Formats: sequence, C-alpha cells, structure tokens
Amino acid sequence: MLDTLIKHVTAVTMDDEQHIYTNAFIGIKDGKITYVGKIEPDEAAEKVIDGTGMLAMPGLVNTHSHAAMALMRGYADDYALQEWLNDHVFPVEGRLTGRDIYWAMLWAQAEMLATGTIAYTDMYMQLPSMAQAAVDGGLYANISNGAMCFNPDGYNFETDGVTAQNLEVLEKFHGADDSRVKLDVSIHAEYTSFPGLWQDFARFAKEKGLNMHIHLSETRSEHENCVAKYGKTPTAILAENGVFDTRATAAHCVWVTEEDMEILKEKNVTVAHNPVSNLKLASGIAPVAKMFEKGVRVALGTDGVCSNNNHDLFEEIKLAALLQKGVNYDPRLMPAYRALWMATRAGAFAQGRENQIGQLTAGFDASLILVDTEKPGLYPVHNPVSTLAYSVRGGDVSLTMIRGKVLYENGKYYGLDVEKIREKLFPILHRIFNA
Amino acid sequence: MLDTLIKHVTAVTMDDEQHIYTNAFIGIKDGKITYVGKIEPDEAAEKVIDGTGMLAMPGLVNTHSHAAMALMRGYADDYALQEWLNDHVFPVEGRLTGRDIYWAMLWAQAEMLATGTIAYTDMYMQLPSMAQAAVDGGLYANISNGAMCFNPDGYNFETDGVTAQNLEVLEKFHGADDSRVKLDVSIHAEYTSFPGLWQDFARFAKEKGLNMHIHLSETRSEHENCVAKYGKTPTAILAENGVFDTRATAAHCVWVTEEDMEILKEKNVTVAHNPVSNLKLASGIAPVAKMFEKGVRVALGTDGVCSNNNHDLFEEIKLAALLQKGVNYDPRLMPAYRALWMATRAGAFAQGRENQIGQLTAGFDASLILVDTEKPGLYPVHNPVSTLAYSVRGGDVSLTMIRGKVLYENGKYYGLDVEKIREKLFPILHRIFNA
Repeated sequence: MLDTLIKHVTAVTMDDEQHIYTNAFIGIKDGKITYVGKIEPDEAAEKVIDGTGMLAMPGLVNTHSHAAMALMRGYADDYALQEWLNDHVFPVEGRLTGRDIYWAMLWAQAEMLATGTIAYTDMYMQLPSMAQAAVDGGLYANISNGAMCFNPDGYNFETDGVTAQNLEVLEKFHGADDSRVKLDVSIHAEYTSFPGLWQDFARFAKEKGLNMHIHLSETRSEHENCVAKYGKTPTAILAENGVFDTRATAAHCVWVTEEDMEILKEKNVTVAHNPVSNLKLASGIAPVAKMFEKGVRVALGTDGVCSNNNHDLFEEIKLAALLQKGVNYDPRLMPAYRALWMATRAGAFAQGRENQIGQLTAGFDASLILVDTEKPGLYPVHNPVSTLAYSVRGGDVSLTMIRGKVLYENGKYYGLDVEKIREKLFPILHRIFNA
Repeated sequence: MLDTLIKHVTAVTMDDEQHIYTNAFIGIKDGKITYVGKIEPDEAAEKVIDGTGMLAMPGLVNTHSHAAMALMRGYADDYALQEWLNDHVFPVEGRLTGRDIYWAMLWAQAEMLATGTIAYTDMYMQLPSMAQAAVDGGLYANISNGAMCFNPDGYNFETDGVTAQNLEVLEKFHGADDSRVKLDVSIHAEYTSFPGLWQDFARFAKEKGLNMHIHLSETRSEHENCVAKYGKTPTAILAENGVFDTRATAAHCVWVTEEDMEILKEKNVTVAHNPVSNLKLASGIAPVAKMFEKGVRVALGTDGVCSNNNHDLFEEIKLAALLQKGVNYDPRLMPAYRALWMATRAGAFAQGRENQIGQLTAGFDASLILVDTEKPGLYPVHNPVSTLAYSVRGGDVSLTMIRGKVLYENGKYYGLDVEKIREKLFPILHRIFNA
C-alpha cells in the first residue's frame, strides 16, 4: 500500500538522464519515492493527488541564507554597503536574542515552503536556537554560525563562543548522514578573520566530518584588500589554509579570478550564487557562465532578505539564467535546464544530500513541489523546463511535500501555525526596532 | 453615497507630494477616487473593503507588450535572436488569425489583472481584433499595429494594410481623451522601414492626434547598421523625420547614446524599458540611470512573453532597480520609489493618461491594486515602498480594481471568464503549433 500516489502529472525529474515524463505517476511510501514513470503502479494508495495540468519537480535548495533576517525585510534599502551594515543592520542584530531568531526562522521557513524551497543552508548566530527552529520548521537545513575575529592576539579556538555553540549543536541536533538538520562549520569570511582561525575551524570540520560554509570574494574591495594583504586572492589563501578540505559552499564569488575557479573546481567547492543580492548591494555580477565552462559547480541562494527582499528561489533561477545571457550578449548561455539544475542537483550536493534530495528518482526522499499550470501566466506549457525556469514565480507553487508529507498546499500550512508565529513576531519587532 | 470605501489601508499614492498614508481611507464613486487620506469620510458606502494589513497603490502600466504572444509562452527559449525569430516566432505568427489574437489577448489580460497591471501599450497585428479584445478585457489599452516595409518602391501609405486597419479602429474604437481603448500609431522600427514610411505615419499621427509607438535601438547591430546606413543613430534619423513630433513611446533604447538621450528628452519621448526581455534575448542593459540623470522619462514594459516569459510587471520594477545598482556598482542608484514611479506615473504619461491613472488622487480613476502583507514573504512592512518594489511579486496582488470595479480578487475574476477563454485556446494552440 502506497502512502501517496500522484497521478497524471508532468514530472521534470532532474535525474541523471534528464527524464521528463508527461502523464506520469509518482509513488510514495515511508517518505521515499518508490516509482516515477508513465505506468500506473499496481499498488493502491492511501492518498491520491490528481496532478492533471500540474508540473512536478524536486523541491528547491537555497544554498545561502540568513533566514532570521526576515525580521529586517525592507528595513534599510538603497544604502551604500558600509552605511547599510554599520548604521542599520548591525545595531538591530545586536539586539536579537535566541528566541527572536527562533521565531524569525520559523517565519522565513513558512515563506520558503510557500515558494517551493525544501532545504536551505543558513549562516547566522545563536546556533542552538537556529537548530531548534530548523527541527520545528520541517525543512532540510544545514546551519552554521560564521566565526569571525579581528584580533589574533585575543583569539582562542577552545574558548571561542562559536566553538561552544558548534559543540552543543553537534551533540544535540546533528544526526546521521540523512539527518534533516545538520551542523555546518562556518568561517564568516576571509576579511573578518585570519589564518590561525581558518586553520582551527578547518581542522574542526575535518575531524567531525562537517561541511564548510563561507562568504568568498563578494565585493571588489574585499577581494583586492586580500590580495594587497597576503599577495593572494581570498580563494587561494583560504585553500592554502585548509578551508576547502571538507565539502564546502562558498557564497557569492563575484570577484573570483580564473585561477580561483581552478582551485574551486579542484577542491570540489560549490559556489552559492546570489544574483539578486549581488545586484541589490551593487557587489557586481558573478562570472557564472565562465564558472560552468571551467567545471565549477554553481548552486543558488537568496542571501538574507535584507538584501533581496524575499526568499523566492524561482526569482534567482530566472535571474541567474538571464543575467549571464545579458551581460555576455549570448541568449544561448545558461539555458533553462541548467538554471533548474543549479537550484536542485547542485544544491543537494552542496548540502551533502545528493543521495536524498534534488531529483525525482525511486529511493530518494519524496521532497517535491507541484505547480498548477492551468492558469493565466503559465498556460500553455510548450516546454515544462522553460515554464519552471522563466514563467513560474514562487507564489505559483501549489504544493510542497517533504519526506512524503504535505507541508504547504494552496495557501494552507500543515505543520507550521503561521498565525501564531506572526503573533510572536509583534513584540519582537516592537522591541528590536524601537530600542 | 459612495460606491466603495476602502478602510484602514496603507496608501502609497504616488501623487505629486509622494504622500504615503497609513490607516487611510479611499472613497470611490462613479469610477473615480473622491478622497484619499487619514480622515474617514462622512458619506456611507455601498461596499466597504477592509484594507487592514494591506497596501494600496495605483495599478501598474505596462508600456510595451505584444500580449497575443501569450500563445507562444516558453515555445522557443535560449536561441540566438535571428534563429528565434526566423525559425520559430515568425512561422507561428504567420498562422495567427484575428480570432486567435482576440482570445490570446483576453488570456494575457487575465494574467495582467492577476498581477496588478491595469493598462498596457500593445503593438501587434490584426488591429480590429486587438481593439475588440481590449474593449472586452477591461483594462486600459493603447493598441497599435507596427508598420513595416522593406521595399520603398512597392510602398504606398494610402493602400498600406496598416493604414486601413488604423482608419477602421480609429472610427470604430478610438474615443475621447479619456477613452479606455485608444489607437496608437506605430512604426515597427527604423531597420524594418525607411524615411518615406516614417514621414507618412508621423504625419498621420499628428493629423489625428495619436501617440506614436516604436522599437528603438534594441540591439547593438540594429543601432550600428543604422549609423552605417544613414550616418546617424536611429533616434536622430527618426527624430529628423518627425516620428517623435507627437507623444511617443520608444521601446528598449538599450544602445542609445548620450546625444540620443538629449533628443529623447527634448522631444519628451518616454522610454519603455524592458529589462527582463533585454537580458533574455541578450540585447544588453539599457543605461537607465544615465537616462534619469539626463532627464529622460523611463517607464516599464514586459515585452512579449516569448522573451520574458510572463507579464508580471512587479518583476520588471525590481529588476529595473537592481540592474542599475549592480552594473553601476552603486546601491543608492534607482531607489525603490523611482522604480514604482516608472511603473505608474511614467507609464500613465506615456499612454496620455496622466490625468486619469498612475496615482491615488481625488478626481483620478479608481484604478488601483491591493496587496495583503500579513503573510510570510511580505510581513513585516518596515517601508511600504520597499515592500512593493523589492518583495512583492505579481502573484501577491489581492485585488485589482479598474474604474471602481473589482475585476480580480484572490484568484477570482469578475468580468473575464478564464475557463471559457482557456477552452477557446485549445483548438487554436493545436492548429498553430501542429501546422
């Protein structure tokens, strides 16, 4: 007996053979996909979903977020970067408690579910609260607290606050390889720390078998200052210090050189490309087409909503494709399928979940989304891949399922109580913005 | 007695003083706004809309579309421009009848209503069918058939097919200045015609008091070929031939020079900026920040959905702002308010409706939209202008009202029968794509 059978759907599987099945059936049991294809399974199903007129695809993976910044959405736009950070973002962040971050992350996860995202890689602070929010939110989450320190003399890895939080979360939350919530190790960025710190955290990641998450060459000045200071690019100096010796996600990479790309490829680093944020903060446009040419894996992220201002990964999919076409004057670059691949397969690998999510294949988790295409704005569907990459926006997602459970369907949440979460935000917002 | 009173809404008026009223009231009678402000009107209202937690703004104006291309959404993506046009788009367009275009335009208008657009400027063909679709669709529409001819010897303005259609629509559909459906005169582009044709159509526009709509310097090759042929840019040579002597909308302007901008400003031409289409077709990025600096009015358009692939003007608003920040490395450029202004006030002027639509002001048409912000993805609203420019996507629009009538609300249409329209599309799609 199947738990769920999705019937008559067009399935964009994102599998190794790039199968796209029309009028397909997806069987689901115990949270896993048991079958995807054109033949109706013999087994009966407890629940049948009629997928007529719908597209199914693997749920999206957001490889770079600061979800709790949902509290600051639209709070400080159109400022120069340092003014934005120092006069607006940092003072508010300084007032955030673990409890604030917990509720803000639940709120952000509700947005992600409603826009087709099933997994995210989040760098922020108050790690135990982040972990609890990830457990309660229902999405796959790789969470980390970005280590930073400006004073090598006063620094001690053993007594560092991040180390303590990492150990706590590692013990209480980090599970087996297929765990839904995982701890990543994070170094905030090259320019906010120094070689001793990099080496310590890289070693910790290696010892514990954890992924690494870091901001890399986001802005021109940060990139150039590193070259002036060390005589090497951020990518080169961090690689030398072992930061990419475990599976790593490097966010932004707007200013990486071709030599940097060779290193990223050799170290099998996944680049988390955040095109909306990079434009909005005026960091520039990452050379993503060149990265693909060089064989570097590129996934997608939204960054925090303070520099976005939403968690709609479909927007990043479309913009990632269009930007490379536009700035390279070649409409054939970054075709639709590749943009979807970035948001699914590349993201799954970045999180260490390439055997769990990112494709609709028997044996993988039943973590998928449905999009109803029988409405103005999406119909007709000449090519399901084009529709998903270029026409769909997050709000078009009808249903989001994680491990066989429907967590969102047509405006309704099953699991998260969004009214309650929003009520919890009232006093938090009042306190942090009226301090 | 008011027809409608919207209560407790946050109103982003886009008026001359840039008023934004929280907890505001909007009174509506006989299709017009009678009041916008913080004081509850004394008059009772037949219908009351509770705007608590909602943003109100003027409906959006799409200043460059080919709405009937909704039939070809996603049909031919990621091709080089000439292959896209010659091998894919033109053969399908050659099979379109007036009836096909009628139903396709109704379908496109349904999408526009659901994403907050109330007015559009459309260049296509089969003008009488376009006019009927515009009348039946319920939106404001400036429609035109782009004149083109490659053979000056065989050309005669009097017997040209476009002239005949222009005269038919002028007589049957074009009304007074405040008419909902208006005829524009259109020359397709500089490179698809010649000075004799430009002069004739420009004179016709002037005689009849009609606006002009044209594609201008969309691609680098078209711009450079013109300079090689005439020793002048498209803007300069068209201006010399009188094309901008009536109110004109010039679509794209990706490759205009600073001298061109001076001409556009002097002639009071509105540029229809189509950032999504320009990236997707790899035409480039229009120098919009520079245009503003030079005093050129810039409005927004989606272009046809074959090069977009939707009619979501909120996507253009955000991308227009972000692109200029990103490519000019200045996050302060093109702030949120300016992006909204492009999609409202600038568009209203382009259409010759600057006294009708584009702002929430007493005496203007009650043609507005509401966005519910009490949901994940939009809450909290620190700054309503930021929320509208950077967080909202078309699907977040809750209600679209034109001349006091609700035409769309929360997925339901009042006026358009979308199920019937979609059924009409089945045989059309079958015929034109299986020929």
